[in-house]
Amino acid sequence: MDEVVVYRRSASRLTIGAHLFGVLAIVLMLIWLLHYRGGIEYDSDNPARVFNVHPFLMFCGFIFLVGQGITPPEYLKLNAMMAYKSVPAAKEAQKAVHMVLHLIGIALGIVGIAAVFRFHDMIGAEDMFSLHSWIGLTTFIILGLQWLLGFFTYMFPKPSLGTRSRMMPWHVSFGRALLYMAVAAALTGLMQRETLLNLRGHAESRLINFTGLCILLFGIFVDLSVALAHHA
Amino acid sequence: MDEVVVYRRSASRLTIGAHLFGVLAIVLMLIWLLHYRGGIEYDSDNPARVFNVHPFLMFCGFIFLVGQGITPPEYLKLNAMMAYKSVPAAKEAQKAVHMVLHLIGIALGIVGIAAVFRFHDMIGAEDMFSLHSWIGLTTFIILGLQWLLGFFTYMFPKPSLGTRSRMMPWHVSFGRALLYMAVAAALTGLMQRETLLNLRGHAESRLINFTGLCILLFGIFVDLSVALAHHA
Ligand code: HEM
Ligand code: HEM
Repeated sequence: MDEVVVYRRSASRLTIGAHLFGVLAIVLMLIWLLHYRGGIEYDSDNPARVFNVHPFLMFCGFIFLVGQGITPPEYLKLNAMMAYKSVPAAKEAQKAVHMVLHLIGIALGIVGIAAVFRFHDMIGAEDMFSLHSWIGLTTFIILGLQWLLGFFTYMFPKPSLGTRSRMMPWHVSFGRALLYMAVAAALTGLMQRETLLNLRGHAESRLINFTGLCILLFGIFVDLSVALAHHA
Repeated sequence: MDEVVVYRRSASRLTIGAHLFGVLAIVLMLIWLLHYRGGIEYDSDNPARVFNVHPFLMFCGFIFLVGQGITPPEYLKLNAMMAYKSVPAAKEAQKAVHMVLHLIGIALGIVGIAAVFRFHDMIGAEDMFSLHSWIGLTTFIILGLQWLLGFFTYMFPKPSLGTRSRMMPWHVSFGRALLYMAVAAALTGLMQRETLLNLRGHAESRLINFTGLCILLFGIFVDLSVALAHHA
């Protein structure tokens, strides 16, 4: 069989895997926050409910949408290679989806970060002490800059085709590094919460561990689908 | 200037960045373990000193050598492109370096993991509860399998050239995913330790945070140097 066809099929299967682990992580996280941790509410007087907005929006909003914003264009391209090559309108539509999904993800991320600052205010804790908060904020800021740079390069004012294609390897490489940084932020966040709650051996700790593994696998499957699509 | 030359130079600079952050992370971690945490010793009666063998060998041994094993061949290739293309012996030497560095890294990793099991025995703690331990062990096992698969594919018995080059995108993509998994393991490990030691606001907590950021940047620079080298 043609090698390129193999890579294309694999990339497409990896994309399905990414959707699967992404949705699974959302379900597990919702069970955790709703069943074990008292629910999700920004305007609550209960600090725990305010805190829960943070992991919920950071993964189910920010990371999930950013990941989705990377896979769907590849996925469409792989199933409709000819359309991608011959109908410029399809390419423009994909670009717009990519851009808008990331914008929504970033907007939800801002609310998610605001929630944890509000939580810290409510319980009188100081901000920005942990390794998690350092990785999280660094990632969020660089990803915002990457979005802006991408917008100015590929949307408006859109420099020459030469510049745009020269920038592409950087855009893709940094984008993938940022996806892994966001996953690392989520995993350190879960780890910190699990340690603080002192859950050793409890069922809730296994639930958190499986949530973390699904988040990691989501990141890996998104990354691998993009990597193999480049060989297709 | 020729595009390929730009990517090649960038990849080579990114490799230097990787060395820099890798060495910086080692120095910061040694300050942490030796100055703040009482030193590193496998055969000690002091559980803290036994534990310290774990982060030391897992980063300074395992992750650092695995990362080095990815960059040097690329680096040599970039500086000696012609030699790489024309002298098959140079390519074989690089492959051997790549293989042996990973083997040493894995061997040190085994000792590092044994150390933390020994530590758990000494303090009477149960094994394999945390998200960190799940991510760590999963990563370590898959990386071992990837090494074996690589050995059988590229060293011995070495199937046909067609098979070998068809496997290459998988070998590279999985290798990069594993590097990020190992970094995620290290970061969750640091996060767990920082939370347990309850260091909020203390200088030691900033030292740990900078160590974590350097480990993350080491992983990203290794990954980006490989990614851009593929465009060169
Ligand atoms: C999926 C799960 C996540 C969980 C369980 C989680 C958990 C936490 C916890 C427990 C805190 C409070 C303690 C601290 O200051 O470190 C926190 C703070 C923070 N998180 Fe997360 N987090 C998650 C994802 C993320 C992500 C993806 C980002 C950014 C990309 C992020 C950014 C931040 C920031 C900037 C803070 C500091 C806020 C402050 O100091 O007031 N988090 N997170
Ligand atoms: C750089 C820093 C690291 C630090 C600070 C660190 C820290 C820790 C801590 C505190 C524990 C004991 C608590 C627990 O069971 O979770 C532990 C256990 C463990 N770590 Fe790490 N770790 C690091 C890197 C790694 C890496 C890179 C791996 C593997 C790739 C790894 C694999 C494991 C495993 C398998 C356990 C479980 C051992 C048991 O349950 O007895 N660690 N680590």
